Amino acid sequence: MTENCLFCGIVAGSVPSTQVASNERAIAFMDINPATAGHLLVVPRAHSTDLREADAEDLTAATLLAQSLVSRVIERLDADGANLLSCIGATAWQSVFHTHLHVVPRYEDDPLQLPWHPTPGDMEKIQATAARLV
Amino acid sequence: MTENCLFCGIVAGSVPSTQVASNERAIAFMDINPATAGHLLVVPRAHSTDLREADAEDLTAATLLAQSLVSRVIERLDADGANLLSCIGATAWQSVFHTHLHVVPRYEDDPLQLPWHPTPGDMEKIQATAARLV
Repeated sequence: MTENCLFCGIVAGSVPSTQVASNERAIAFMDINPATAGHLLVVPRAHSTDLREADAEDLTAATLLAQSLVSRVIERLDADGANLLSCIGATAWQSVFHTHLHVVPRYEDDPLQLPWHPTPGDMEKIQATAARLV
Repeated sequence: MTENCLFCGIVAGSVPSTQVASNERAIAFMDINPATAGHLLVVPRAHSTDLREADAEDLTAATLLAQSLVSRVIERLDADGANLLSCIGATAWQSVFHTHLHVVPRYEDDPLQLPWHPTPGDMEKIQATAARLV
């Protein structure tokens, strides 16, 4: 755990989050600034600044958890597809410097473009979506 | 190998590509419609339609190869960062239906937005960039 790292705080439980899945080395929780409904983040429990520095086993565990969640959002949220995205460096739109994979459900009529401009989602809606994913 | 799959053809060598790296289960080659200089694709050798269907070992091998290439583009191409992206379904901008991970080098002054509109790159420049990555 690294002090002052938001995602280390979420992994430790000292920062609240809406967790939907986990394995030994990674956890998945709702993005509170969702690009689309059901936007999730998958993070290795161990701190690393970005994907380059992630331990191979941690990255593997995070990727396989993300893979299962891609299927889950498509099945349970009736999404038409999904994007898996990781941002390495501020130039590549990284804003939290703890390795993470975005799982972004996609819908036929969604207007997603990247970069998106993160804006807080409706927490009630996010919780209701999370309940369909656990 | 699946007939009429472009990336299966590249894996088999029957379709030309500029390969820059490989491991037992995945290969990496230059995207001929680069979003930015050095844009690479990493594909499992075994066919699967999209990331949901990829075998865990294939996806792991592709991810670890992509991880090493993220570091390599940043070091060798003097990129400022990179994005790792996978598109699952046409709605999510997938256009070739063989699982692939995009490694997109990022530069401070690049204008990247997604979706990008793939346009053929200059093959001489692509080859010259590839030579710095092998």
